[in-house]
Amino acid sequence: MSTEESRGEFAFIDWLRRRTPAAGRVLIGPGDDAALLDWSGGAGLIATTDMLLDGSCFVLAEAGPRRVGRKAMAVNLSDVAAMAARPVAALASVGLPRQGGRILAEELYQGMREVADAFDTPIVGGDTNSWDGPLVINVTLLGEATPRGVVRRNGARPGDWLMVTGSLGGSILGKHLDFTPRVREALLLHEAVPLHAMIDVSDGLAADVNHICEESGCGAVLYAEMIPITEAARGMNDGRSALEHALGDGEDFELVFAVAAEDGRKLLETQPVAGVTLARIGEFVGETGLWLGEGGGRQTLPPEGYVHALE
Amino acid sequence: MSTEESRGEFAFIDWLRRRTPAAGRVLIGPGDDAALLDWSGGAGLIATTDMLLDGSCFVLAEAGPRRVGRKAMAVNLSDVAAMAARPVAALASVGLPRQGGRILAEELYQGMREVADAFDTPIVGGDTNSWDGPLVINVTLLGEATPRGVVRRNGARPGDWLMVTGSLGGSILGKHLDFTPRVREALLLHEAVPLHAMIDVSDGLAADVNHICEESGCGAVLYAEMIPITEAARGMNDGRSALEHALGDGEDFELVFAVAAEDGRKLLETQPVAGVTLARIGEFVGETGLWLGEGGGRQTLPPEGYVHALE
Repeated sequence: MSTEESRGEFAFIDWLRRRTPAAGRVLIGPGDDAALLDWSGGAGLIATTDMLLDGSCFVLAEAGPRRVGRKAMAVNLSDVAAMAARPVAALASVGLPRQGGRILAEELYQGMREVADAFDTPIVGGDTNSWDGPLVINVTLLGEATPRGVVRRNGARPGDWLMVTGSLGGSILGKHLDFTPRVREALLLHEAVPLHAMIDVSDGLAADVNHICEESGCGAVLYAEMIPITEAARGMNDGRSALEHALGDGEDFELVFAVAAEDGRKLLETQPVAGVTLARIGEFVGETGLWLGEGGGRQTLPPEGYVHALE
Repeated sequence: MSTEESRGEFAFIDWLRRRTPAAGRVLIGPGDDAALLDWSGGAGLIATTDMLLDGSCFVLAEAGPRRVGRKAMAVNLSDVAAMAARPVAALASVGLPRQGGRILAEELYQGMREVADAFDTPIVGGDTNSWDGPLVINVTLLGEATPRGVVRRNGARPGDWLMVTGSLGGSILGKHLDFTPRVREALLLHEAVPLHAMIDVSDGLAADVNHICEESGCGAVLYAEMIPITEAARGMNDGRSALEHALGDGEDFELVFAVAAEDGRKLLETQPVAGVTLARIGEFVGETGLWLGEGGGRQTLPPEGYVHALE
């Protein structure tokens, strides 16, 4: 809890406290020096943290505080999803502008809570500060591994299929604030087949596939025609093609993963994730590097996702 | 890990990674979507988070990045100490000014690492962002309860002694940056006697004793003559008395705790914590409220620590 709390911020902690009673695995919630969670199950502890800054990761005046709160929680849940783990609890810190900070804090909290509640994740602690700078919000997410363990970035093998949930590109038009973290989808996939490697698309499809390649010591070819592209990306008309948006835009928060070819076929046939289409978008190769395959040819694909028209 | 990482920040994550190998309980350290820790011991999980903001919790230009890093880690360790728990791992997020961010990040990290290393606490994850605002740093600390459980704020009873580690006041002159979190002291006290309630002095002695009183449903009398006062507080010459500084200044990060009178006597006699003097500074009473006892009289003590000269 804060070392910089004003009386007004204490009241906010009290307000938060009434909304997070000790229940289930929360043995001590907000209001003491730290939270205490029951972790007697013995499963591995997952921990991730993300800081969102006004003007950089969102524009408060455009997005509004509730959507910013949603995003702050959702990006962390997406990291837990990318490990194929279960979220358990969250902690949230905010640095509030001095003007209107209390109302802002409540709206942010409501947004965080909406997303956290959807994944049964109590907010067990926090820190509330006021300052002369713009809004800053930091969320830490704690989760636990399933009995199948976690899925890392480093297990892709040459010949593996590269697959993705949903469609990609143009998230700046709204999805970067309003996406649903793929927590349930990751757990369903993890049960359905052995996942060799997985990541959430935060930096951009090409960049994130490149992370998997670097960690796995292999390369990948993405098939231009097979990449699912959002309507948002198709409508951007900013001089970049829809494909470039799908390859280069960040913050889609879809899952990209590597599976054995036979498991990939099984996933395409069974589509085990209700409401989300799984697509094959490429394959891993032994040679290190990243390529875009298009119309029978292939070109080197920079992690930024820039594409040159193939002759 | 960050959703807003530039190429330069990736390099920083790589740099951080080489300094946090998977070892001991760290099954996966920095570099994947989330960290994975072994938590098979079954002990309760402690979690706390604190955000520090340039110009509010520190002045970067005066303190320098290394001391800021130290403070960011130490305030969180102090919260774990206040629960009488053991620190296990930390996560750190930073929002860096665009100019000189890389060097700043490394200095901050070195400072965090110095304090974390002193308590065997690996930094297992983080998020690095650049923006147009001032420096922001957020640390989350994970710890575990000892077999004796944790010490909360809510267990003080009328007749309990109010005790403190070290001395108080004037932390703004340096201690607020350079203090040693009382992690070892808390664990030694927790072994020595039953601790009824405990808090670290972050808001100020009077304010923090008031927190214990509110949570415990009782009151407390502080004895003016018995409160250990730092040399820093005695030398401030700013129109407030040294006692007022000891009562009202925040960020001493000493431990204030409640014990049965016989256990308090035992602690005074045995002084089980090497290098840190334990002092009795008051007692808890059945009537709710906060008082300062001085020269046989007593006056109401506001949580801000302001004192009126007694006639």
